[in-house]
Amino acid sequence: MPYTTSQLSDLQDITDVLHAYARAIDDNRPADVAALFTDDVVLDYGGDYTNLIGRPLAQKFFAGGTSRLYKRSAHHVSNVEIEFTGDDAANSIAYVNAWHEFNQEEFDVDMPNAWIYGRYIDELVRKDDTWLIAKRTFRAMGHDAWQSPCTYIDRS
Amino acid sequence: MPYTTSQLSDLQDITDVLHAYARAIDDNRPADVAALFTDDVVLDYGGDYTNLIGRPLAQKFFAGGTSRLYKRSAHHVSNVEIEFTGDDAANSIAYVNAWHEFNQEEFDVDMPNAWIYGRYIDELVRKDDTWLIAKRTFRAMGHDAWQSPCTYIDRS
Amino acid sequence: MPYTTSQLSDLQDITDVLHAYARAIDDNRPADVAALFTDDVVLDYGGDYTNLIGRPLAQKFFAGGTSRLYKRSAHHVSNVEIEFTGDDAANSIAYVNAWHEFNQEEFDVDMPNAWIYGRYIDELVRKDDTWLIAKRTFRAMGHDAWQSPCTYIDRS
Repeated sequence: MPYTTSQLSDLQDITDVLHAYARAIDDNRPADVAALFTDDVVLDYGGDYTNLIGRPLAQKFFAGGTSRLYKRSAHHVSNVEIEFTGDDAANSIAYVNAWHEFNQEEFDVDMPNAWIYGRYIDELVRKDDTWLIAKRTFRAMGHDAWQSPCTYIDRS
Repeated sequence: MPYTTSQLSDLQDITDVLHAYARAIDDNRPADVAALFTDDVVLDYGGDYTNLIGRPLAQKFFAGGTSRLYKRSAHHVSNVEIEFTGDDAANSIAYVNAWHEFNQEEFDVDMPNAWIYGRYIDELVRKDDTWLIAKRTFRAMGHDAWQSPCTYIDRS
Repeated sequence: MPYTTSQLSDLQDITDVLHAYARAIDDNRPADVAALFTDDVVLDYGGDYTNLIGRPLAQKFFAGGTSRLYKRSAHHVSNVEIEFTGDDAANSIAYVNAWHEFNQEEFDVDMPNAWIYGRYIDELVRKDDTWLIAKRTFRAMGHDAWQSPCTYIDRS
């Protein structure tokens, strides 16, 4: 761009936030997921979901998935693109290939393992030397066997 | 290696080119795909394809896929390895896990969703401070439900 | 963290080791896989496997997979998180989405293509300016059509 050492370090730290999110989800540690968000985080997951606002609601939302609906999951994050929008602010877009095995007893219909392919479109801010997700928008690129409605990326 | 700050910055920029490619493909923006190539780019996709030479032909090729054959796609890029071959030249190898949903009305046979797993083997050059793909070779590692012939990597 | 240029360079080199591993596996080059390990490497793959100790045994283990059991494979590595534990030591966690096509003639049962989703939990050391894997633990997050027992990550 060229990037400075400080910026390269920030790119690494921000990427680490995205990876920590995936690992906490797949470990079923919803409190650790929520700790990666700002207090007033906004989560726009599309589909049938209204926006979720605030860390406590986010934690509750993720706990419902990771501890109840999903028996196992694997969130493979890649294609991380980051743009600084200020000294302590950045936007990122990352791909996720998210695989899920469901707790069948929670559902009335057969729930085969399912993949959803999408993008996390994030706004991040640095607070007290820590990068946090202030807004996350999820948009799907496609899926296999995913049973819920999803909001897709715009395609030209 | 060790890398200098300038080289680390270039590694980031080159990786960003690979990600911008995937995102433009999945967004169905073939002109933006072509903008990542040099004017005299060479694309060697193997399979039944002869090499495509030049940016206009590349754009036409990708437009045929993204706007006609594919209803949706998701190109997950990972395992990016980059080697500098000069101050303004580099080779890269990256993995892609490319998922496709097809526009069924374009085909006479049933076209299930398909994955192809492969490698982009690229030669990049810097022109006017921008890294561009000068040559791209795609070789498959495997696939699920992919209907076209593909050329595989060499396995010992 | 913030990272220094030297640390950012090391992060790149360590990540390159993880990618070189995947590429050597998928190329069926088990000697090149083993060259990424220390002489006294410990491999804990879980499942039915006891720990494998030492580079020669590691090479034999991987050769059995890549040259006999697997016809093709694709090891997509992502979510690389690295923590330095000394000047010449680091721990890493990485995700892998590992796809396999089997040599059907080696099996008495039908072996469909299979995915396994897991984590490489590694200890790396620098020897003579080269980062090597001293210990690798593999734990599964899930799978589709994988026929062997696997040891899963702990989920809360």
